[in-house]
Amino acid sequence: MRRHQHHHHRPPSPDTTESESSEETMMKCVSCKEEYDTDDAGTCRECYEEASETEEELKREIEELKSKVNFLRFWDSRPHLRSTVICSFTDVVLVAVDADSGKPVVNSVPVPANKAVLASRSPVFRAMLETEMEESLSGTIKLSDVSYDALRAFVNYLYTAEASLDDEMACELLILADKYEVKHLKTYCEKFLISKLNWESSLMNYSFANQHNANNLLDAALSLILDNMDKLSKREEYVELVEKDPRLVVEIYEAYLSKQVNTAAIVGIHDDKGTKR
Amino acid sequence: MRRHQHHHHRPPSPDTTESESSEETMMKCVSCKEEYDTDDAGTCRECYEEASETEEELKREIEELKSKVNFLRFWDSRPHLRSTVICSFTDVVLVAVDADSGKPVVNSVPVPANKAVLASRSPVFRAMLETEMEESLSGTIKLSDVSYDALRAFVNYLYTAEASLDDEMACELLILADKYEVKHLKTYCEKFLISKLNWESSLMNYSFANQHNANNLLDAALSLILDNMDKLSKREEYVELVEKDPRLVVEIYEAYLSKQVNTAAIVGIHDDKGTKR
Repeated sequence: MRRHQHHHHRPPSPDTTESESSEETMMKCVSCKEEYDTDDAGTCRECYEEASETEEELKREIEELKSKVNFLRFWDSRPHLRSTVICSFTDVVLVAVDADSGKPVVNSVPVPANKAVLASRSPVFRAMLETEMEESLSGTIKLSDVSYDALRAFVNYLYTAEASLDDEMACELLILADKYEVKHLKTYCEKFLISKLNWESSLMNYSFANQHNANNLLDAALSLILDNMDKLSKREEYVELVEKDPRLVVEIYEAYLSKQVNTAAIVGIHDDKGTKR
Repeated sequence: MRRHQHHHHRPPSPDTTESESSEETMMKCVSCKEEYDTDDAGTCRECYEEASETEEELKREIEELKSKVNFLRFWDSRPHLRSTVICSFTDVVLVAVDADSGKPVVNSVPVPANKAVLASRSPVFRAMLETEMEESLSGTIKLSDVSYDALRAFVNYLYTAEASLDDEMACELLILADKYEVKHLKTYCEKFLISKLNWESSLMNYSFANQHNANNLLDAALSLILDNMDKLSKREEYVELVEKDPRLVVEIYEAYLSKQVNTAAIVGIHDDKGTKR
């Protein structure tokens, strides 16, 4: 941002009377066009003009980036392109299989894709396809513990960086993103789940985040839990979690204790300064 | 952007003397921290705070879009990925050939690529590869009138939306972008060439833009030419252009005439209103 070097202040008008000067202190805001007095004053005119320029520049940058994203994604607003790319030029298929039988899940069909795209988006796919592993030779990648819908959404995301999420889809995609190390998708799902967090869902999300290495979600859920420790042990999920993963429950108590110690330390500092409440 | 509904104006302090009130009209800008008086006043405080929030939001959006672009491009900051994608998973090569002999240009090698990427970025490649044309069957696309360097930069742009330009490269890439209908690249090259435009280069750029359907560049060059009509016929390029493409020179004169008529009309309106100079 350009910064101006100095202001040019005009001298106050010489024939100012007291009543006039009190009127003069009312100014009209160049942005909202309402009147305000010196107590509500914000910026000088030059800073306002610079800020407006900056805003325009940022908006132009956003437009350019959006057009770049549109250029780089494979379809989206151009669904006819999708069928073309999918039908003509793919060299691998992804199949959602049942973990036990290894057979494709009911009502699913193989999802076609490009090795180059998979390899560029996921280091796991890259390793799989670069080497002479089964997947590379057969041209078929089997994914277990995933619904057909989630698999299609996953592949779509790798081509477009877009997915429409609900709670279930966000969880399914986060699991895939963790497994195949697609960081961008993981962050996207975490943001969605964090925006939906509440006290009721925090324990479940905490356990889920821990299982799938979603650290942002883990921190957000833990913070909510710590704010509601008094109600914690009354929850059904708490009892279940103690049963299923007691180590994780210990971590909650450790975080709680550490928070209490820190709070005490801060209160201690205040007490030393004599600012007792 | 949220708009606030009303301001809370505090009443002026009752014991204001004249000298104090003249001091009161000096305010400290919340942005640059310098003093200013009412004549230099910009916005009220609320509008300043809202503008700051807006700026933060825009910057967050830019960061998100940048990370999307990084996710969707194939390599760039990850050159090791480039070799992987290029070597293992490509299904087509592009070759720079001599227009006359049809043989590869000196010191060039075929540039490997993915049909899916080419088809998603360029409708011309798509048509070429979808149908059973020679290019699709042989897996080789021949491009004439292009240097090996420009071909590599072109393919790189299709994967990353990035190219480092100088005058020559911008012209070569613009020609390719026009031929293969890669709008995003064409706009990119035009912006670069427009930023470099000056009176000396305007005639050459005008002719070049006309040849390759670069309308933004054409308009910018024409506008510079019209501002310098008195010097036009003295230029060497002018004589050459009259020789090479007289129709295009006619268009310059037509635009000049039309501009003169418009200017006269505006002056006429002013004259009617009695605002003679």
